[in-house]
Amino acid sequence: MADRLNVREGGQPIYDIVIGKDFENLGEELKKLELQERRVCIVTETTVGPLYEKAVSAVFEKMAKEVHVFTFPAGEGSKNLDTVKNLYLFLIEHHFDRKDLLIALGGGVTGDLTGYTAATYLRGIDFVQIPTSLLAQVDSSVGGKTGVDFDGYKNMVGAFYQPKLVYIATDTLKTLTEKEFLSGMGEVIKYGIIKDEEFFCYLENHAEDIMKKDPESLAYIIKVSCDTKRKVVEADFKEQGERALLNFGHTLGHAIEKYVYEDRLHGECVAMGMAGAAYISFKKHYISREEMNRMIDLILRYQLPVKENRIDMDKVIQTTYSDKKMEAGKIKFIVVKKIGHAEIDKSVDWMEMKQALWCIMEGKYNER
Amino acid sequence: MADRLNVREGGQPIYDIVIGKDFENLGEELKKLELQERRVCIVTETTVGPLYEKAVSAVFEKMAKEVHVFTFPAGEGSKNLDTVKNLYLFLIEHHFDRKDLLIALGGGVTGDLTGYTAATYLRGIDFVQIPTSLLAQVDSSVGGKTGVDFDGYKNMVGAFYQPKLVYIATDTLKTLTEKEFLSGMGEVIKYGIIKDEEFFCYLENHAEDIMKKDPESLAYIIKVSCDTKRKVVEADFKEQGERALLNFGHTLGHAIEKYVYEDRLHGECVAMGMAGAAYISFKKHYISREEMNRMIDLILRYQLPVKENRIDMDKVIQTTYSDKKMEAGKIKFIVVKKIGHAEIDKSVDWMEMKQALWCIMEGKYNER
Repeated sequence: MADRLNVREGGQPIYDIVIGKDFENLGEELKKLELQERRVCIVTETTVGPLYEKAVSAVFEKMAKEVHVFTFPAGEGSKNLDTVKNLYLFLIEHHFDRKDLLIALGGGVTGDLTGYTAATYLRGIDFVQIPTSLLAQVDSSVGGKTGVDFDGYKNMVGAFYQPKLVYIATDTLKTLTEKEFLSGMGEVIKYGIIKDEEFFCYLENHAEDIMKKDPESLAYIIKVSCDTKRKVVEADFKEQGERALLNFGHTLGHAIEKYVYEDRLHGECVAMGMAGAAYISFKKHYISREEMNRMIDLILRYQLPVKENRIDMDKVIQTTYSDKKMEAGKIKFIVVKKIGHAEIDKSVDWMEMKQALWCIMEGKYNER
Repeated sequence: MADRLNVREGGQPIYDIVIGKDFENLGEELKKLELQERRVCIVTETTVGPLYEKAVSAVFEKMAKEVHVFTFPAGEGSKNLDTVKNLYLFLIEHHFDRKDLLIALGGGVTGDLTGYTAATYLRGIDFVQIPTSLLAQVDSSVGGKTGVDFDGYKNMVGAFYQPKLVYIATDTLKTLTEKEFLSGMGEVIKYGIIKDEEFFCYLENHAEDIMKKDPESLAYIIKVSCDTKRKVVEADFKEQGERALLNFGHTLGHAIEKYVYEDRLHGECVAMGMAGAAYISFKKHYISREEMNRMIDLILRYQLPVKENRIDMDKVIQTTYSDKKMEAGKIKFIVVKKIGHAEIDKSVDWMEMKQALWCIMEGKYNER
């Protein structure tokens, strides 16, 4: 039996997130989409495609009118309007109309790109997400954010658009590199810190099972992560208030990610951003030194970084202030009031952020 | 006092359509958008800009944080992703964030393009429509359709996205060419035929006032047209059923518009498509010969065409069958059951359409 969550909008059920071990239950889940008369285009990239495209295609071949596969070069470099245009042309060439369906098979780039194409082709066609990275499974499964990078800016062009189904097969995590898996753990830890102390404790106590990719532990942490994001997002679909909490660790993390180096993954930068945000929360007397250290220890337990000495301080601060999460010139910084409870704080200034960045550069949080 | 309609979605009020004579009431209407802290970008083109940009800018200058103007070359040729990209770059350059606002000042191309950019910049920012053509006023003010052409296909890329306000100044119709004004009348007549017999009679009896652009008559026909579209769309926001009635005259009209010539405007092609659809409705015994002729006479009364001998029959039929309004291979043709009442009919075949096209080619509807 696969685990299942239902995501709603304005009280209405809109789609299920199904978490299974492999693709065994995918066919069953697709039945309600009535594919007999519909064309399907599986969108994937050059790393994930060779691993899973055949297995997934086989399921659709049995049910859909036609199955086509569009493969683009793996990597963030493909997440732009040129790839979207190529996909539009592919769909036009194969006569896709508004009743047809896209399938995003891959990580975050594939999901964002496919979702955005689905949102805008013929003013919107259905799509299904099959996220294969831990980060995409716990982050992109909920919230309807789609988009591509533009002119050097991340997610500058996009839309809010919901999938018809998200199907997660935890076995796909076995083919992920360790670095990518741990990057996903950065976001998982975030959910514990901002909303769920019990889950934070689970992550402290089950690190060994998780690190060796025990299927049940993986299904559990994915389910809790998606469910936490679901609760936050359902209360706030257009990102006005509560949803901002999901940016915990991201204000500094995004800025570090953007300017400083190419060898760090998103979750690694978020890990450093979370350590910095924990430090700021401690300095503002919201949490004790012990609580700060418990968070930093959990990050380290999952082999995620809290130290990076190659930071260009001024550029990071500048980027932070030009971030699209700004509101009327003030940064909506997310602080922790206790483990399992984060809040928006508009009083965090550049001096406090600079101090946090010094901690990250030195990897020392207890000496200032 | 300006006329006003409220457009709702799922029972919730989402925006007002305000119909005034000029821009006198615009400032008052903008108050509720609280522009003090917001940047505004007026998007317009090289024909409309020189006529109205100054008057509109003056209103925003008094209220907004910053006012910028983006002008693109007038014409359908600009309605593509290249213009959208240029607008994205302009917005980035001027530091527009998600709290800022776009203003579409112009006809249908400007509205569609600006709405699409607003829908996708930073996953959606607010926009206001100031439609200056009759067609845009009665067609684009309601329904949330935004989009651009792609690879030779009209509106291939787009999104459903609602404005925060639509402000119509009927005086702008005075600077419209007669041909463009009459093209808009094609859509106005459509509303009478599909939904409102009383309005159809009004159009029969007040042609003289309307043709000489009497402000009160114009405000009335715009209001009734928008209100009719509003009722149809509110019942059916994602174009599943009822909304298809708005395609009356468009199945043949679009195909004629696409392939046959460049010198015909949208409303002129719709006029011919409506004459053809009236003929099919008569041939299928839904309406009497007299009713068919009453519709054709009204079209002619507004100097719109019902004859065009330059039609490439095969191409038009072929285009009709590849239209995105198709559903599972069947054309959702819109027929008239009586004046003021249209219905979807999936039984119309290519032979009947061919006969209607012969009538259009010969301009004779009473000899077959």
